[in-house]
Amino acid sequence: MAESWSFVDTFESNFRPLVVIELAKGTKEETIEWFTKRIVDKKANGGAQLQIKPLVTENGDENIYLVGASHLRLLLGAETVGLVKECNDNSMRTFTYSSRKTFKDFADDNHNFLTMAECQYIIKHELENLRAKNEKMIPGYPQAKLYPGKSIVRRLLTSGILVQIFPLHDREELKKLRHSWYGRVKVGYQPLDEIRCYFGETIALYFGFLEYFTFALIPMAVIGIPYYVFAWEDYDKYVMFATFNLLWSTVILEVWKRICAIMTYRWGTLLMKRQFEEPRPGFHGVLGINPVTGREEPVYSSIKRQIRIYLVSLPFVCLCLYFSLYVMMIYFDLEQWALDYHEENESNFSSLMLFVPSIIYAVVIEIMNRIYRYAAEFLTSWENHRLESSYQNHLILKVLVFNFLNCFASLFYIAFVLFDMKLLRQSLATLLITSQILNQFAESLLPYWLQKRHKKRMKKRMCSLKTDTDLSLVEQVNLEKEMGTYFGTFDDYLELFLQFGYVSLFSCVYPLAAVFAVLNNITEIYSDALKMCRVYKRPFAEPTANIGVWQLAFETMSVISVVTNCILIGMSPQVNALFTDSKTDLILTVALVEHLLLAIKFIMAFVIPDKPRDIQIKLAKLEFESLEALKQQ
Amino acid sequence: MAESWSFVDTFESNFRPLVVIELAKGTKEETIEWFTKRIVDKKANGGAQLQIKPLVTENGDENIYLVGASHLRLLLGAETVGLVKECNDNSMRTFTYSSRKTFKDFADDNHNFLTMAECQYIIKHELENLRAKNEKMIPGYPQAKLYPGKSIVRRLLTSGILVQIFPLHDREELKKLRHSWYGRVKVGYQPLDEIRCYFGETIALYFGFLEYFTFALIPMAVIGIPYYVFAWEDYDKYVMFATFNLLWSTVILEVWKRICAIMTYRWGTLLMKRQFEEPRPGFHGVLGINPVTGREEPVYSSIKRQIRIYLVSLPFVCLCLYFSLYVMMIYFDLEQWALDYHEENESNFSSLMLFVPSIIYAVVIEIMNRIYRYAAEFLTSWENHRLESSYQNHLILKVLVFNFLNCFASLFYIAFVLFDMKLLRQSLATLLITSQILNQFAESLLPYWLQKRHKKRMKKRMCSLKTDTDLSLVEQVNLEKEMGTYFGTFDDYLELFLQFGYVSLFSCVYPLAAVFAVLNNITEIYSDALKMCRVYKRPFAEPTANIGVWQLAFETMSVISVVTNCILIGMSPQVNALFTDSKTDLILTVALVEHLLLAIKFIMAFVIPDKPRDIQIKLAKLEFESLEALKQQ
Repeated sequence: MAESWSFVDTFESNFRPLVVIELAKGTKEETIEWFTKRIVDKKANGGAQLQIKPLVTENGDENIYLVGASHLRLLLGAETVGLVKECNDNSMRTFTYSSRKTFKDFADDNHNFLTMAECQYIIKHELENLRAKNEKMIPGYPQAKLYPGKSIVRRLLTSGILVQIFPLHDREELKKLRHSWYGRVKVGYQPLDEIRCYFGETIALYFGFLEYFTFALIPMAVIGIPYYVFAWEDYDKYVMFATFNLLWSTVILEVWKRICAIMTYRWGTLLMKRQFEEPRPGFHGVLGINPVTGREEPVYSSIKRQIRIYLVSLPFVCLCLYFSLYVMMIYFDLEQWALDYHEENESNFSSLMLFVPSIIYAVVIEIMNRIYRYAAEFLTSWENHRLESSYQNHLILKVLVFNFLNCFASLFYIAFVLFDMKLLRQSLATLLITSQILNQFAESLLPYWLQKRHKKRMKKRMCSLKTDTDLSLVEQVNLEKEMGTYFGTFDDYLELFLQFGYVSLFSCVYPLAAVFAVLNNITEIYSDALKMCRVYKRPFAEPTANIGVWQLAFETMSVISVVTNCILIGMSPQVNALFTDSKTDLILTVALVEHLLLAIKFIMAFVIPDKPRDIQIKLAKLEFESLEALKQQ
Repeated sequence: MAESWSFVDTFESNFRPLVVIELAKGTKEETIEWFTKRIVDKKANGGAQLQIKPLVTENGDENIYLVGASHLRLLLGAETVGLVKECNDNSMRTFTYSSRKTFKDFADDNHNFLTMAECQYIIKHELENLRAKNEKMIPGYPQAKLYPGKSIVRRLLTSGILVQIFPLHDREELKKLRHSWYGRVKVGYQPLDEIRCYFGETIALYFGFLEYFTFALIPMAVIGIPYYVFAWEDYDKYVMFATFNLLWSTVILEVWKRICAIMTYRWGTLLMKRQFEEPRPGFHGVLGINPVTGREEPVYSSIKRQIRIYLVSLPFVCLCLYFSLYVMMIYFDLEQWALDYHEENESNFSSLMLFVPSIIYAVVIEIMNRIYRYAAEFLTSWENHRLESSYQNHLILKVLVFNFLNCFASLFYIAFVLFDMKLLRQSLATLLITSQILNQFAESLLPYWLQKRHKKRMKKRMCSLKTDTDLSLVEQVNLEKEMGTYFGTFDDYLELFLQFGYVSLFSCVYPLAAVFAVLNNITEIYSDALKMCRVYKRPFAEPTANIGVWQLAFETMSVISVVTNCILIGMSPQVNALFTDSKTDLILTVALVEHLLLAIKFIMAFVIPDKPRDIQIKLAKLEFESLEALKQQ
């Protein structure tokens, strides 16, 4: 390691560790040497021009490195990744080093101009863009092939030499954030801007959505309470509630787009140009020329991918859906059987037996969910998508459809085949409440408890001080590298999505669902915050301008809920009593109302602009300026 | 005029007249002098740097001017308007003067690098962008106020000093185009690229759509013929036909987007950056600061506009729709009355009376359509939209809804209230065929005949030569300035839209509609071509990348047609015979099928990419290159 230390001499005195790189134990010397040299090498030589420092631990492990960068390097990096910052005139502009003086809060000695999350994002971007020049392989590992332009870090990751890269927590900042976020009991908004500064836009947007969604549910919850309290059963009240619900859900989804635009404009991501996406790590193919960049990279025929999607994945998903329905039918048979058994020989044992089918079904569903998730990940990976975003979209779609069926199929069956509204209400309540409790437990409290225990053990072993902030850097790194990895907002959104389903699909049968959803979301905010701050490694910030496919998923759910609610109302005995002479008239009326509601929904979605007027004007102004600048050239 | 002649001296010897400006008779000398000076003045002085030449006619009128420009000026103008041209490497790029050598077919002496339509578009753009500097009014007309940045030409137009601006025809080119377009009887595609070169993208795209739509209808027509020939009445055959029709209409609308992308990529408009839109001529408001440009211009509160739209226009449109329905009901009453009268006292007179209600209704509808059109134009203009595009969209929406109701309300009434399929088929055929014949006559043949007569008169008066191409410039200008003005593709698209309605809304009742539509469209291509080449003034080319709102309108129609066809099939006696026991089951089945079809439609629209893969790659390549270029900076 003698040579790599020579680079340390060139460090600024105030080396600030930002990102941790953990190499596999026993990585060859020549590999480490080559890799660190590439990291510190000048841009002109194809390096990343960052700073790297080995972390010397007590037991002498040398497989952990800290990466930092000089202030100037970070500013140049901010220009490369196309960061958008606020100017002195309060407009948002793409940061360039030459125009740095025009930006708000910029000063050559202000090292807080870029947030720590931004610095870490820049370093991640620079590391991932460290590309092979004419190396044919990773030195010391002939089986890890390289070709000009291949990302070195991605190859190191896929060949297992690089165990992980993660950004360091900032203990002090985190403490402040925790305090303002969930440290004290208070009524008010979350500190979204601070969350964004610490965790990046994707996560801040998730918490923003969670908060917005909770507020948006409150009117539904408030209107729903009297239905429960006074046990209102008049159909006209239910019709009113359902109609309000359906239109309201359209409005909230449209308004969210506007709020999202306001937030992401303030954060700069709304204006951020999408960078050209590199192939995702798992992508493989024959070496060819990328038609877009003209560079050498693995190429995989899009027709082959389409064939895999439509001839393998699609049938497989359909089969799984069918199987899931089949299991549900068995469950209902079992349920019927247990009921019959209980009626025949009434005993303590038989009344216990009544619960058995539900428990078995819940367990089977959970197992099926897990297996399916693995299968979906395997299949989507096998479909060999070039882009991470397209991989994610296909995975989300697969998982979404299956989860939707698993959660709601039994409710649909009860509602539209058994016609048992009492049972529907009961099942809905049970499913909603148990799933919420289980989720909160499995997602945050359990990992938190495990984490706490682990920390205590670590602390004991290290005999270190009690308070968090006094931990030494070595201890901090050792602690954080053992923490779980946060795999993105997927599961959190999925939970919200299913909750939205419980609330809206059968809203006219169980108006209290919104109340439970609101209560759950309030604790969800706290437990998710806890999870982010305490349980997981700090995730890399990921700039994003919207919640992506989830917007579409929620909108689709709200369309489906129009249909289900109309049918439910049409089936209610009160409405049926109105149309005693002709069932045909009833169905026609319901169909007419449904089509009208759908038409109103689409018109509303069309009429409400996706961006508020002032954001539209600001965007138009920027576009106008760039056009004018082009003309001036 | 002595002074303005001095500018003529600076002309290149080969002045090519491109655009004609007609001023009002008796326009003041000082105004003409000022205006022509501004047109020829250097760019640096705020002029347009074009060439202008008065047209000296026999009777000494001096109110007509010809505008041209030097080759260099046009190339610089092409850069200003952001024209996209093909490069030597077959990629499409935004033209810049500095990179001119890299473009295909570019040579300093090749004056055909820009098509005549492009040159005329550039001149129009430059004229419209001739802006007031510190003039407070148009010299000689104190009531025609100006303010810095106001387009001079637009003010001249609104104050009536400028009668019209129009581009000149190119007799020889037009002859060639006519020959290859409709001059000979042939089977084959239209010369869309030549049409685009001569008339611009908007008109070429209309003809492209008309042609595509005709081809797309052929499968429907072919499948529809045996239903007529063999008088098939089996419900299963109708169900098959309708299902095919509904899915087919989704496919053709999606595929059109792809074909449109291919065409507009080739023409360069797909890549063309949208210029900042200036306020439309009729827009008025208090002088203020435009928040986007920061320039002084009339400002009108968007809330006031919203109020006018939602509190005046919307109720008015609804009232008109209601009135139109009311008139329809009167028509049906009259019809019934005539029938009763005929049955009571059967005579020649009474059988003649049978036709009276239809004739009255047709006349009333025509009158209502005209009045409504004026009202819609007045209202939309009163709504005071800042942009021409937004004005057009609001106008199209208003006219579309009313025309839809006028055309189809009686059919809906016959189908879903009277339940008379025989009458529906008969009315559909009558409406479709008569509207087609009337349209072709009123739209092209009548104006053509009038035009021909007028030309003959003109020729006689001028005692000029017989053949078209030998006409002198003076005669050509005098002839063309009297020709009608083509007001854009609105009416042509509207006709196609209504035709699409006749074909798809009731396709399962009258499969022959597609056959008539195909026949009509084949002659429509010829009559529209005739209209463009012979009847109207040459219109200015208008770059466009798609057919705009019409895509949405056609898609909406295809959604509505799913609903109508499902209901029609559900009402057919054959299907009813299948569900003799329970009418409820029938309706539920129909509703289920309808929802399934709608779901399939939306999924298909989602799955079929809007742009073909190679266009996507070409666009991505351009984006990648511009990102790389930014990085190099």
